[in-house]
Amino acid sequence: MNPTSPQSSSSTASTSAELQGTAARTGFVAANAAVDRAAIAPLSGSRKIYQTGSRADLRVPFREITLSSTPTTFGGETNPPITVYDTSGPYTDPDVAIDIRKGLPAVRAAWIEERGDTEALNGPSSQFGQQRLQDPQLTAMRFGLVRQPRRARNGANVTQMHYARQGIITPEMEYVAIRENLRRDEYLQSLRDTGPEGEKWAKRMSRQHPGQSFGAAIPAVITPEFVRSEVARGRAIIPANINHPECEPMIIGRNFLTKINANIGNSAISSDINDEVEKMTWAVRWGGDTVMDLSTGKHIHETREWIVRNSPVPIGTVPLYQALEKVGGKAEDLTWEIFRDTLIEQAEQGVDYFTIHAGVRLPYIPMTADRMTGIVSRGGSIIAKWCLAHHRESFIYEHFEDICEIMKAYDVSFSLGDGLRPGSIWDANDEAQFAELKTLGELTQVAWKHDVQVIIEGPGHVPMQMIKENMDLQLDHCQEAPFYTLGPLTTDIAPGYDHITSGIGAALIGWYGTAMLCYVTPKEHLGLPNKDDVKEGIITYKIAAHAADLAKGHPGAAIRDNAMSKARFEFRWEDQFNIGLDPDTARAYHDETLPKDSMKVAHFCSMCGPHFCSMKITQDVRAYAKEKGLNEQSALQNGMQEKAIEFRKKGSQLYHAE
Amino acid sequence: MNPTSPQSSSSTASTSAELQGTAARTGFVAANAAVDRAAIAPLSGSRKIYQTGSRADLRVPFREITLSSTPTTFGGETNPPITVYDTSGPYTDPDVAIDIRKGLPAVRAAWIEERGDTEALNGPSSQFGQQRLQDPQLTAMRFGLVRQPRRARNGANVTQMHYARQGIITPEMEYVAIRENLRRDEYLQSLRDTGPEGEKWAKRMSRQHPGQSFGAAIPAVITPEFVRSEVARGRAIIPANINHPECEPMIIGRNFLTKINANIGNSAISSDINDEVEKMTWAVRWGGDTVMDLSTGKHIHETREWIVRNSPVPIGTVPLYQALEKVGGKAEDLTWEIFRDTLIEQAEQGVDYFTIHAGVRLPYIPMTADRMTGIVSRGGSIIAKWCLAHHRESFIYEHFEDICEIMKAYDVSFSLGDGLRPGSIWDANDEAQFAELKTLGELTQVAWKHDVQVIIEGPGHVPMQMIKENMDLQLDHCQEAPFYTLGPLTTDIAPGYDHITSGIGAALIGWYGTAMLCYVTPKEHLGLPNKDDVKEGIITYKIAAHAADLAKGHPGAAIRDNAMSKARFEFRWEDQFNIGLDPDTARAYHDETLPKDSMKVAHFCSMCGPHFCSMKITQDVRAYAKEKGLNEQSALQNGMQEKAIEFRKKGSQLYHAE
Repeated sequence: MNPTSPQSSSSTASTSAELQGTAARTGFVAANAAVDRAAIAPLSGSRKIYQTGSRADLRVPFREITLSSTPTTFGGETNPPITVYDTSGPYTDPDVAIDIRKGLPAVRAAWIEERGDTEALNGPSSQFGQQRLQDPQLTAMRFGLVRQPRRARNGANVTQMHYARQGIITPEMEYVAIRENLRRDEYLQSLRDTGPEGEKWAKRMSRQHPGQSFGAAIPAVITPEFVRSEVARGRAIIPANINHPECEPMIIGRNFLTKINANIGNSAISSDINDEVEKMTWAVRWGGDTVMDLSTGKHIHETREWIVRNSPVPIGTVPLYQALEKVGGKAEDLTWEIFRDTLIEQAEQGVDYFTIHAGVRLPYIPMTADRMTGIVSRGGSIIAKWCLAHHRESFIYEHFEDICEIMKAYDVSFSLGDGLRPGSIWDANDEAQFAELKTLGELTQVAWKHDVQVIIEGPGHVPMQMIKENMDLQLDHCQEAPFYTLGPLTTDIAPGYDHITSGIGAALIGWYGTAMLCYVTPKEHLGLPNKDDVKEGIITYKIAAHAADLAKGHPGAAIRDNAMSKARFEFRWEDQFNIGLDPDTARAYHDETLPKDSMKVAHFCSMCGPHFCSMKITQDVRAYAKEKGLNEQSALQNGMQEKAIEFRKKGSQLYHAE
Repeated sequence: MNPTSPQSSSSTASTSAELQGTAARTGFVAANAAVDRAAIAPLSGSRKIYQTGSRADLRVPFREITLSSTPTTFGGETNPPITVYDTSGPYTDPDVAIDIRKGLPAVRAAWIEERGDTEALNGPSSQFGQQRLQDPQLTAMRFGLVRQPRRARNGANVTQMHYARQGIITPEMEYVAIRENLRRDEYLQSLRDTGPEGEKWAKRMSRQHPGQSFGAAIPAVITPEFVRSEVARGRAIIPANINHPECEPMIIGRNFLTKINANIGNSAISSDINDEVEKMTWAVRWGGDTVMDLSTGKHIHETREWIVRNSPVPIGTVPLYQALEKVGGKAEDLTWEIFRDTLIEQAEQGVDYFTIHAGVRLPYIPMTADRMTGIVSRGGSIIAKWCLAHHRESFIYEHFEDICEIMKAYDVSFSLGDGLRPGSIWDANDEAQFAELKTLGELTQVAWKHDVQVIIEGPGHVPMQMIKENMDLQLDHCQEAPFYTLGPLTTDIAPGYDHITSGIGAALIGWYGTAMLCYVTPKEHLGLPNKDDVKEGIITYKIAAHAADLAKGHPGAAIRDNAMSKARFEFRWEDQFNIGLDPDTARAYHDETLPKDSMKVAHFCSMCGPHFCSMKITQDVRAYAKEKGLNEQSALQNGMQEKAIEFRKKGSQLYHAE
């Protein structure tokens, strides 16, 4: 979809005769694994910066976008760099040597160790983890993990929520607080420092319309204490498995920046490990705040290890998918023991959140019988089949407290799955869906009793006028636990464009209060996303999330928009590209029409051409107005504009204009 | 952007030494002009059908999508074809021979003639029109027009609004009524006719969630009388210049299907006539309800003639652009006489609506001085410059009643331009914008006094929480005259993706009541759209418009969604592609992962693979539920599902589920 993004391809394919067994069949060999070159250069016009917190090893990354000065004809002022949120991890830091065979630096390792409530195990404690480790067929593809898995010491609870409720501000919480503020104060100070007009520019660039937040409570500045209090009351989570020390802490909650998730994962008929690592690095480059590995094919375990070790963002999974594979795809053969072993296996690899479809209760299943599209959640349908086959509540529902015990031993967060979400506009907001949602609220209370962090998954397919009901019921039933929705898609009629049908719904529900938006790619309903699709989905969802932040009135959200608009008005083309979510595509589109480099500083654009440009005319108008004294003050004085002024006054009252 | 759409290219480029003068320089020769082959095949799985109205020459086109039967394992029922709105004109009718050198058949010619209130002129009455006709340099590129322009007889008013207010139902109104109903009754009857379960399917396929329409008054069935009454009260328009008899009538109003407009047009530095005709045919193929020709380059007059003669949809223009060209780009040199001549020139070519920036009043201009992006409307900035240069209200504002006289002599509709619309989030909903809007409301009253049809243009760049205010004020100030908005863009930070930033805003404002959405392409702010961009913009806006129709509760809007969902559940892949807005892209995406033809009937999709498919499991669940009697009735009887039933009852009260 994007002209400048490389095609998805494995950089490690090999046909060497030396390769043995499964590794040869998949074409993936660990020793040859290499990072996708396209994913490691800094973004155009940007550099990685770090802000150090209260301790030297607490270095919060940002992307700083350098801006050029305003042309003299427009005023000539300096435009200090702006700082934006950076999910790309060390990949875009030229000072870090990337070798995906070794994984990322463990930025959280010391913090976890210092807490003294965990212990290193001798090896995986899950049966499956041990078995995979011993399988010689997997040697060639296995990630060279040297770090031992950790687990809470006897009876300890190592969740961020637990610490928060003890009144402890962890380094993770401080990290998140610094990260969420986006160095806004520093930016405004840099504007003030530009000269006599600095104060004016600080005001202009941070000007923002009042938001409509539907009950969110976003403070002007995020403090570590605010982060702690939000985590303590369950209104936000910091997904941070103690076995994923490579993860740069982030927060998911209604009073923080709206986040997005990107799904990747292979299936039985497509994709290999290196493709999935590439999708992950590609996803975080463009702004994925978390990544879910939804692999259902072979080598789920090995694929996950590669992804987690190389991921700077939290990784989510649906453990049920792997459990099902372990019983040969027969849902009715699933057992609590197999599921439990899978949870431990994945928790010890470092998965940060698990989708758990514990709300699919036996009585709700017949409620789906008259649906147009039945149960479309894979997890939901597996549980449904199991429940019907055994005529009882699922082992997940019945063992929910046992699951909590596992979660708190590693700090895995619950993403309580919406197994009965609607798969069509027809099925939206039905009884089955809301019955499950209520159960998810009850389970949230259970998890919170164990100080286990929780987010709640939401739909799906919902027409616009019915989206708010989803948010309202979720807030009510789930006591403000963060909502995490897939879209929702606002119509079913556009396969190939479901990033857009759902981007509309995502922006709306984000505005209403959803904390994290799970992206949908153009391939939804049609096929597995490739790297281009991943990028298209991510950019679409970054738009939805940012539009939601603006609408909620998230402090400082408009700075990036304002910087873009100023650059646009002043024909600073390179700055426009670089401030945007995707500089490469913007530049490529521009160059299609005006390919010459000289045009990048041209004071006109291709829409109008050199002799006919509204921006240019506006400048003339402004200059003229200034020259002739046609501004507010002089208009008042010379009386010529009396009518205009009269209108201004009336207008201000009539329309509540600022 | 779309893998299957052909690149934009001129099929008529020629380097023949015989070519002379300007024609040779542009590379366009009328004699060689040929239709874009990609634009004339029927859409996949579809055929053109016509429904005849009260007279034999009133044949309303539809696209009928043939559907396959449900596989036996799912029930084996027949799925009658569904009917969708068709903007593509004769291009997708294999029975019509297309020759763009001759233009389209004049479907409205007899209706116009019969009314007896117009006369054929000997030739263009505008000076410019005469001049171009006599210029030998233009011979090679000129469209071979044989039809004489028409004009109202002395003092007659030939607008659809005028007829409506006389109580006359024109053939145009009847045509529109048939068109808007989408043969829904016939479709439901065809379902009932499928057999004993037909009634059930008729109910299921037409089931729709109640809408939230914010005061719209959409009847269950659109009658010709309803169309008349809506046009009479100004709440809808039928753009239908008597000189565009090729146009298939359509209606723009809040109580009708939400429409979209596609902008095309060359600029001084890019594009030629054949490219623009291709963009137009491409635009109507994918669903453009109207097309605006915004050309600003050379040969505006000739380009427009080619477009109008070949367009089955209403054409809009901004006459000011051409007027400016006539004075060498110097806004201050514009005069009423030049503008008036341009209006007549274009009215006699058949332009159906004019964007007229009559609301840019002198007192409002200084209100833009403190904006971040000033005046971004090209028309607005031209007027602003003129006003400041002459220190007076614009000739457009002062001659507004004279313009009305011209409009009603040809039935050109006003699209009252928002010359002061915001060009950035920063500038949204400001005093200048709303001052202009109020003036547009006053001018609407003036136009209506002349029975001239009016739509009102709207922004622009507006964050989500401020969109509704635009709609509310527009309805209030402009007495429900149809609103016609550009997006609005909900954030500024995604150049290259402004179809999406604005598609979100368009869906919202469409829901709130906007009658027509002006598309934005991925090239917005960066360059001129090519054919791929035109398609991407159109599909995005078809999504926004349809999502809006669903949210408003437009009767029958959900039928297409329901047909898609049923096909999806039953793994009818070809039907899914064909029901969608863009079958070609959906099929191409599907084939990327599952290329074999046999996979098109596979009962699984690539997301899950053959052994792991939630839809398949759902079917198993349903079959199992049926077999075991786990449906509502038997659950009640055997008592096993007591709890579920209890929940159903409680749920129905608690959540107002249906």
